[in-house]
Amino acid sequence: MADCEKAKIQEQIKAQGEIVRLLKKDKADKDKISEEVAKLLALKAQLGDNGTKQKFVLKTPKGTRDYNPAQMAIREDAMNTIKACFRRHGAETIETPVFELKETLTGKYGEDSKLIYDLADQGGEILSLRYDLTVPFARYVAMNKISNIKRYHIAKVYRRDNPAMTRGRYREFYQCDFDIAGQYDCMLPDAECVKIVAEILESLKIGNFVIKLNHRKILDGMFAACGVPEDKFRSICSAVDKLDKTFWDDVRMEMVDEKGLAPDCADLIGTYVRLSGGKDLIEQLKQDERLSKNKLVMQGLDEMKLLLRYCDLYGVLDKVSFDLSLARGLDYYTGVIYEAVLKGTPASEAKANGESVGVGSVAGGGRYDNLVGMFDAKGRNVPCVGVSIGIERVFSIMEAQVNMKATRTTDTQVYVASAQKNLVEERLKLCNELWNADLKTEQSYKEKPKLLVQLQYCEEHGIPLAVVIGESEIEKGIVKLRNVATRKEREVPREKMIEEIRLELQQLSS
Amino acid sequence: MADCEKAKIQEQIKAQGEIVRLLKKDKADKDKISEEVAKLLALKAQLGDNGTKQKFVLKTPKGTRDYNPAQMAIREDAMNTIKACFRRHGAETIETPVFELKETLTGKYGEDSKLIYDLADQGGEILSLRYDLTVPFARYVAMNKISNIKRYHIAKVYRRDNPAMTRGRYREFYQCDFDIAGQYDCMLPDAECVKIVAEILESLKIGNFVIKLNHRKILDGMFAACGVPEDKFRSICSAVDKLDKTFWDDVRMEMVDEKGLAPDCADLIGTYVRLSGGKDLIEQLKQDERLSKNKLVMQGLDEMKLLLRYCDLYGVLDKVSFDLSLARGLDYYTGVIYEAVLKGTPASEAKANGESVGVGSVAGGGRYDNLVGMFDAKGRNVPCVGVSIGIERVFSIMEAQVNMKATRTTDTQVYVASAQKNLVEERLKLCNELWNADLKTEQSYKEKPKLLVQLQYCEEHGIPLAVVIGESEIEKGIVKLRNVATRKEREVPREKMIEEIRLELQQLSS
Repeated sequence: MADCEKAKIQEQIKAQGEIVRLLKKDKADKDKISEEVAKLLALKAQLGDNGTKQKFVLKTPKGTRDYNPAQMAIREDAMNTIKACFRRHGAETIETPVFELKETLTGKYGEDSKLIYDLADQGGEILSLRYDLTVPFARYVAMNKISNIKRYHIAKVYRRDNPAMTRGRYREFYQCDFDIAGQYDCMLPDAECVKIVAEILESLKIGNFVIKLNHRKILDGMFAACGVPEDKFRSICSAVDKLDKTFWDDVRMEMVDEKGLAPDCADLIGTYVRLSGGKDLIEQLKQDERLSKNKLVMQGLDEMKLLLRYCDLYGVLDKVSFDLSLARGLDYYTGVIYEAVLKGTPASEAKANGESVGVGSVAGGGRYDNLVGMFDAKGRNVPCVGVSIGIERVFSIMEAQVNMKATRTTDTQVYVASAQKNLVEERLKLCNELWNADLKTEQSYKEKPKLLVQLQYCEEHGIPLAVVIGESEIEKGIVKLRNVATRKEREVPREKMIEEIRLELQQLSS
Repeated sequence: MADCEKAKIQEQIKAQGEIVRLLKKDKADKDKISEEVAKLLALKAQLGDNGTKQKFVLKTPKGTRDYNPAQMAIREDAMNTIKACFRRHGAETIETPVFELKETLTGKYGEDSKLIYDLADQGGEILSLRYDLTVPFARYVAMNKISNIKRYHIAKVYRRDNPAMTRGRYREFYQCDFDIAGQYDCMLPDAECVKIVAEILESLKIGNFVIKLNHRKILDGMFAACGVPEDKFRSICSAVDKLDKTFWDDVRMEMVDEKGLAPDCADLIGTYVRLSGGKDLIEQLKQDERLSKNKLVMQGLDEMKLLLRYCDLYGVLDKVSFDLSLARGLDYYTGVIYEAVLKGTPASEAKANGESVGVGSVAGGGRYDNLVGMFDAKGRNVPCVGVSIGIERVFSIMEAQVNMKATRTTDTQVYVASAQKNLVEERLKLCNELWNADLKTEQSYKEKPKLLVQLQYCEEHGIPLAVVIGESEIEKGIVKLRNVATRKEREVPREKMIEEIRLELQQLSS
């Protein structure tokens, strides 16, 4: 490296060091600090052989996290609950690659497209990480010329969003999606999606919730009736979508100042988007002088009425609310949209505290009838409706609910312990027998472990039984079977060991 | 767009069109053709508003695939078998992000580093997709200052390798890893890894297999004894690793011509790397005049002897073979290495046919005692040993074994059918009852489905029971319970429906 270049980097290191120093002094956000420290170390690394050992920051990428075994135990528990519900409704599962051709994702996400992760161009195809599971699903349906399918897909998606990890918002996060594709009758698949959201949130036991419902036809018709130019529908829609996070005044400002909507037009929208209710609201809007003239609105209201009827038959009417402020940001929705929100901090309070009320959002979805057609050469459509469970937020809530330290992370049933030295070979033989009998078994990886250490391991890890052997047990052809919780031991003939363990496990679990 | 620029692109389109035409004429590899077609369409898209509708290629990225529901059913079956084995051995599970800081992966994979997928630099950190689960595991252990853990991790990894999809080699593929980290006694964790490979391959029922064993200390000591300069150990090791795919002559050529090894030194290595056997081979090598002078070799042979003893106690001695040709390409191994290979086409035959014998490889792993230390600021090490199941190859074999069309992809137990029109609301009520009773239930999404169509659906999808209702059943307060296979129907009081269904399902499953 030329000396002048070295000097330049050293200058940069000095400046970056100052940034880090200030951040630390200000007790800034930890993520921010480690990001800047990473830049500093990267600069230092450029100097290479400058005498100091090359260091690096030990962290996961911004907005991502590892799950430790206790977190995994909770996560798998929640996922199994969700999966069981999907399968109870007759769904099958598919899987798609984590990245897609970039052009597959282009033009599907509106303003959110900037959040897509691209892969480096290393020769060959241009790829991006999937942003959701819906677009890959539509690509799959079109590519395989499928006319109907009911599938779930549980996998990670990627968004270069501003992470808020304490509130469960990450850049890499799981989605649990359920979708019904096919030419079916009005609201029948849609109502089942709402039912599924209700079933899942109830069985996860994470608190009271409400499923907000709206309809893109009602929104679009309302925009038209309020005088929004058609080319502004989607951008005004995405402004309305922010109503769960910000006050109407801010949304109005975005509409007027940023998106160039006429002020009185925005005010008209404001009178509608703050309405919510049930069947009564539908009737009220049907009588509304302005809206009743719009065909799209009337059609949407009729469909919403049918949806509420089906929700009633599915026993979830008390869980839903027709809410005109619900817009959902994505471009591809064409019909019913919904979003489940946990009831907790009232929205107004959270907004006043500068918190995102969206934290309460734990599921969402809707109808997207034209997405598959975007992937078909002849534009053939397969109507779809689906729901996505915001599982990361569910985890955050569940993690806060349980005692992480008391969560068992293994299934081990039996521990093979030895009372004297030189019994490692006997232990291996016993373990082999137990594994071959499909008993979940562990032992020490030390040749000469202390008995106390072995028994302590059992108690600390919640292992119910221990098989203990010593010289005398081997001579007598027996093993000691120890109940770890009661610390009671009894002698069991070696050839009856498996049988006796099965019996005792059965008793313990009953 | 300026006219000159347009003309330039049109030139490129012409040239690219010619490439595609020639490939099609030559009936080239399909993947290659669609790759070039994609480039052509991307060029055409640049012209934008040139009158034609923008088209795109409908495909998954090169080297990746979707899994359809039947494939998923097989896949989940295999994964559950593997997971059950890991848990039988007392393992817990963790999860790490799909991408890591690029520097985390740097310097871990030797010559294979060129296969790492990088993410585009979109501002912020420089990231790469994980290449395996081992390096992220080591990063996790170091970052969380863990002194011992036994964990499994089942997830996708990414390698920009030349795909051979018919043989189950993909760019995106699952790995099922089990690792034991901690300061333990010699060969105890290592032998358990070998035992686990044997258990898994036996329970997957994909054919006979052999687990090849070797030791990096034996390899390195042998290289030293044969006069390989120390700085060439890793590159010569990676040449030896190719012995399962190519003949010795080619490997020798790589050593001499590409890697600059002295010819007689290569010949000496050749006499050793073609040896394989059991305890006898260990004794033979201990007597070998050249090798017996090397401390590293002798230490490795002693450890190998102990490993074989433990394999004997674990009942898997007949499944293992001490094989000096086994080298494994990765830099980070420091002790025992192993690889499970399906016995099928003899290696020599496959090589002569130009096939990769590596197709037979279905699991591999080894000891890596220094990897965690590479992530610790003070270089503190946590010794590790692990195994990775090559699950994609397992799938390929299983897919070829089963009748994909006969594979059931849903769990649905009951179908609610109606005999007349206008019963949609009754069906919804029944479904609601059944779902609430945790019975896996489906119905038609048509308002007025034909009875025949509904019953046909049950037969085609292997649904065992149908609940059939008509006007008269509703009047009488009953439902008809139909056994789909026998087509026998019986009347059941509506209030006893759930009970009767449970009973009949129990009978059917016994």
